[in-house]
Amino acid sequence: MVYDLIIIGGGPAGITAGIYAARQKLKTLLITKSFGGQVARKAVAIENYPGFEKISGQELIKKLEEQLRKQKIDIEQKEVIRVEKKAQGFLILTESKETFESKTVIVASGADPRPLEVPGEKKFIGRGLSYCVTCDAPVFSNKTVAVIGGGNAGFEAAIFLANYAKKIYILEAGSKVGADQFNQEKVKKIKKIEVISSAILKRIEGKKFVEKIIYQNKKTKKNITLPLEGIFVEIGSQPATSFIKGLVDFNKKDEIKVDFETCQTKTEGLFAVGDLNVGPYKQIVTAAGEGAKAALAAYDYLSRLEI
Amino acid sequence: MVYDLIIIGGGPAGITAGIYAARQKLKTLLITKSFGGQVARKAVAIENYPGFEKISGQELIKKLEEQLRKQKIDIEQKEVIRVEKKAQGFLILTESKETFESKTVIVASGADPRPLEVPGEKKFIGRGLSYCVTCDAPVFSNKTVAVIGGGNAGFEAAIFLANYAKKIYILEAGSKVGADQFNQEKVKKIKKIEVISSAILKRIEGKKFVEKIIYQNKKTKKNITLPLEGIFVEIGSQPATSFIKGLVDFNKKDEIKVDFETCQTKTEGLFAVGDLNVGPYKQIVTAAGEGAKAALAAYDYLSRLEI
Repeated sequence: MVYDLIIIGGGPAGITAGIYAARQKLKTLLITKSFGGQVARKAVAIENYPGFEKISGQELIKKLEEQLRKQKIDIEQKEVIRVEKKAQGFLILTESKETFESKTVIVASGADPRPLEVPGEKKFIGRGLSYCVTCDAPVFSNKTVAVIGGGNAGFEAAIFLANYAKKIYILEAGSKVGADQFNQEKVKKIKKIEVISSAILKRIEGKKFVEKIIYQNKKTKKNITLPLEGIFVEIGSQPATSFIKGLVDFNKKDEIKVDFETCQTKTEGLFAVGDLNVGPYKQIVTAAGEGAKAALAAYDYLSRLEI
Repeated sequence: MVYDLIIIGGGPAGITAGIYAARQKLKTLLITKSFGGQVARKAVAIENYPGFEKISGQELIKKLEEQLRKQKIDIEQKEVIRVEKKAQGFLILTESKETFESKTVIVASGADPRPLEVPGEKKFIGRGLSYCVTCDAPVFSNKTVAVIGGGNAGFEAAIFLANYAKKIYILEAGSKVGADQFNQEKVKKIKKIEVISSAILKRIEGKKFVEKIIYQNKKTKKNITLPLEGIFVEIGSQPATSFIKGLVDFNKKDEIKVDFETCQTKTEGLFAVGDLNVGPYKQIVTAAGEGAKAALAAYDYLSRLEI
């Protein structure tokens, strides 16, 4: 069987594409390892998705997944490892060695957390070092922790950690933090959060569990040791796009180049939406909007094929 | 006082821009005649806005408006009649002769229904002829009506009218209807809806109220008379953009040209989002996504100004 459309990814972008594709009566398969993407791991409640004054990431994803499952659409919970172009359409290969065929593809598989790449990182994963503050914050009740990264994600993680930890450092490598005014002002009001800028993380040390970090002050070049029990990594994400190489163009951050009117890549019939394309504004509602556009563009592309 | 941002329009695009701008701490004014745009007048329940399996247009708009009013933002219920470029920023003039100044502007004022432009149209407005099926459908209980226009809007209007009217014609000027498969199949199942294609509406007749329409069959060139009591106009919309002439480029449909990565027009600091730009896919969630992008792009533009 050949699908009209295969959607890869189960975050807001992929789910919205699925809802739209099913309503257009496209024979559609959505493949995803799990539902939710980064939204399901979000530390603080969502207050900027239109329609909900305040909703947790998990709750919003649950609503989206339920809405998707009401549609006439096939769903496979699998990992995609390669997309190949065929004479007609595309071939999708999964880790479990299955293959699926489709006339069009929407890639919506989001982005993974970017690793620190400093000594000690791998050793301490699950032993004090975490990439998911929503998952692990409660473990650090009354402990001292550091958030690595002074962007919005780092600030939001610190605000959330303030519900548990007794002291939170935010380490930012640059001389200025990247978080927006809203988050900066919120953090200023929480006494137990301390922002340290120009701080280059050098290594993580400890016996069995994290005991301290060593960072260099970029200006004075001095090494400084911070005793602490937890580290949360919030230095951005890297798009999960290796399975699509050759069919699309990337920018320096490995984000996929698209035409934003339709979210089509350089390959006709292949679309990329949400966190993994070059769009500068990565929001839940922008991802959802792009998912809708790509599904309707895929429908238009298929209509033209049939003429 | 000079605002950082003035948003013109109170539909999903403008409201989402407002929520994002306020959270970025921009000094923001939203000007709109009324809240809701075309969504508030939608005939059938909304089933494709991610997060709500089924919600009426009025209910969704109420949620959006409430979410907006929780933000720190100024709101003026007025009609904008002109936007002028000044050396620094923009000047906005309202029908009530007030002026407002702003460094950036997001135009989100949507689109108005396109008129039929046939004899009788003006005479029968409110006397059997309507541009708003949500508003007026109940008046036509057990009556015979025609929907002019065979696109999605026309089909959705007919489906909604089936709750009231005893017979509904859909008149489409082209030889094929433009409605999507989903709506076509829904209409097929409703016996009292009859689709007539290749039908060019010639005129509307009646004494005090609508009594009949005369249309020409495009193929046979024969004029045909349909006795009926109601007419709903669903032949698309025209963007409300005359107040912005000179500052932006238009396509043939008077839609505003933008760069879809940021929704900026050819004038720096001036953005256009939702139904009135050239985007081919005019959905609630795409409008909202564009509103978020434009507000964040306005914030970036202002940050660069301040450096």
